[in-house]
Amino acid sequence: MNSRKTRKVMVGAVAVGGGAPVSIQSMTNTDTRDAAATLAQIGSLAAAGCQIIRCAVPDAAAATALREIVSGSPLPVVADIHFDHKLALMAIAAGVAAVRINPGNIGSEAGVRAVAEAAGEAGITIRIGANSGSIAPELRKRLPAGAEGVCEGLVASALEQCAMLEKYGFRSIKVSLKASSVPVTVAACRAFADRTDYPLHIGVTEAGTRERGIVKSAVGIGALLLEGIGDTIRVSLTADPVEEVYAALRILEAVGLREAAPDLVSCPTCGRTAVDLVGLAGRVERYVDECRASGKRFSLKKIAVMGCVVNGPGEAGDADLGMAGGNGKFVIFRNGRIIATLPESEAWAAFKAELDRHII
Amino acid sequence: MNSRKTRKVMVGAVAVGGGAPVSIQSMTNTDTRDAAATLAQIGSLAAAGCQIIRCAVPDAAAATALREIVSGSPLPVVADIHFDHKLALMAIAAGVAAVRINPGNIGSEAGVRAVAEAAGEAGITIRIGANSGSIAPELRKRLPAGAEGVCEGLVASALEQCAMLEKYGFRSIKVSLKASSVPVTVAACRAFADRTDYPLHIGVTEAGTRERGIVKSAVGIGALLLEGIGDTIRVSLTADPVEEVYAALRILEAVGLREAAPDLVSCPTCGRTAVDLVGLAGRVERYVDECRASGKRFSLKKIAVMGCVVNGPGEAGDADLGMAGGNGKFVIFRNGRIIATLPESEAWAAFKAELDRHII
Repeated sequence: MNSRKTRKVMVGAVAVGGGAPVSIQSMTNTDTRDAAATLAQIGSLAAAGCQIIRCAVPDAAAATALREIVSGSPLPVVADIHFDHKLALMAIAAGVAAVRINPGNIGSEAGVRAVAEAAGEAGITIRIGANSGSIAPELRKRLPAGAEGVCEGLVASALEQCAMLEKYGFRSIKVSLKASSVPVTVAACRAFADRTDYPLHIGVTEAGTRERGIVKSAVGIGALLLEGIGDTIRVSLTADPVEEVYAALRILEAVGLREAAPDLVSCPTCGRTAVDLVGLAGRVERYVDECRASGKRFSLKKIAVMGCVVNGPGEAGDADLGMAGGNGKFVIFRNGRIIATLPESEAWAAFKAELDRHII
Repeated sequence: MNSRKTRKVMVGAVAVGGGAPVSIQSMTNTDTRDAAATLAQIGSLAAAGCQIIRCAVPDAAAATALREIVSGSPLPVVADIHFDHKLALMAIAAGVAAVRINPGNIGSEAGVRAVAEAAGEAGITIRIGANSGSIAPELRKRLPAGAEGVCEGLVASALEQCAMLEKYGFRSIKVSLKASSVPVTVAACRAFADRTDYPLHIGVTEAGTRERGIVKSAVGIGALLLEGIGDTIRVSLTADPVEEVYAALRILEAVGLREAAPDLVSCPTCGRTAVDLVGLAGRVERYVDECRASGKRFSLKKIAVMGCVVNGPGEAGDADLGMAGGNGKFVIFRNGRIIATLPESEAWAAFKAELDRHII
């Protein structure tokens, strides 16, 4: 939940806006016409923590497959449609929880009206997605050059497209404004957030390959969430979409919108590090992730893995459970008290046993 | 360069604050007493883009080794010292460009005075590093519980430690305020930035293992930089410090403080993706990184690798050079014009030839 007051819309059973927790989205990259493959991927994404799933609907065969996908999906399905309003009508008839369209590129006024009316009757949500590619050429000509113009263009384009739906009494709208530039994305979302109460889907578009994309998304989405802007998020990566979900979860944890359950802190390595800290911290992270993926929960709020005899014990004292090491020896802490001193070779087994004691 | 007005300090030849470009720091994790190993690591870090290097100085042998490290290092060296002001004096005598101390834990008033005077005579900078572990117990008792108290404690602790140096006329100070919580770190840096003109070294402490740490650092450092706060940055990871430098560089690129040279954008995969986009985008990224690491520069500002026949060509038209593909075929764009249509098997070779044509 964040501090900007927004109108609530529903995407299936998932509330977006109006004080609902910020939800995680991803997009399948299977062929939507292959319902079985798409459902298998949706299953993996749901297991990883995805809450809303979007499927590309490039043609009538994909729209037809939506019926099977919707009925088998554990997550609400959003149909992603460009250019052809008939595909949007087919998707709505197939029972999707939302459609993503740009009213400005859906073909005709009559097409926009038909989609707004069908979505209204079905009681579903429409996501409007403005991105730098979707700014109308006439609008672009009137705007200043450079980043400022793109930002203004995104906001004007999003408002204009909202108005195209409002004209037909349709207001169950969520909006995204995305650019591949992080500062432009942040500025556009801020400006739009100041002017409407529509919930925002936030993300950085074409964020790029995994490494660059995670950093760009974390900066852009994170900065907005820290300001209280953003109701649902998608990390866009040129990678397995499961990676998008993991990265989204980590961003929500980083800004304090999801309990990290438990938060894992570890100090950077430095010249004082006399133990295999990278190996041990990685082991702890993997073990905690595995436990969480299999549905186990910990009663611990903070775990620390520290390699430094100077800072380690003081910092790890803050943690519910921690280990700090140096010169081949580790100490294990619980609530600030040392409960064991061990050689490095026994540290992991002892720490794992402590972790297991805190599974609830 | 960022928008907060700060006083300029020098760390060797690198200006920090006063409108200087935001610089990248890291910390060696070799044994500082092993000067050869430490210098080898500094060399790798400098090649990756590190501009200021910090070395832990836990004892007199490490302080002694600093002389050789300083004379062989291509980067200005900061000595990281806890508890013992004599080590700081030894480091200053060894010619370091800065020392990082917490005056509150350096032992005695006389010790603080001796370090301030020696640093003043040597004309070097002192970094004060406040973190949640360094808040004095007496101060902590007076503060509210929870995140708000930690934030106030960090700011009060940093101001108090600045005053301990100012008392001896020393003002060549840069300051860090770090917590393992991103919102606390951001709030503390903002509050401190409002109250002084000292340049800020920003980072999230104990950010954790590589995956979580990159996200936490990107959110915290990125949000502050987007507000114009931060003069030098360190990404703390429990990983090879070279990874810290790469992540720092990507954060600066994401907020627009470094030219990405060229910026590489690629769309997320989706159900429309009919080509091996992940493989191709990864190939382009690696090739560009290799060229940059070997000192080659591109005349291109933006490269796009798009896998989507719906959005691809429109978006890739923005790029100086782009490819967009679907159904096994790729088109290559230059300044918005299609210059080649190729089967997927020939796309990489043709695109690489185009990239090479833009090396300057």
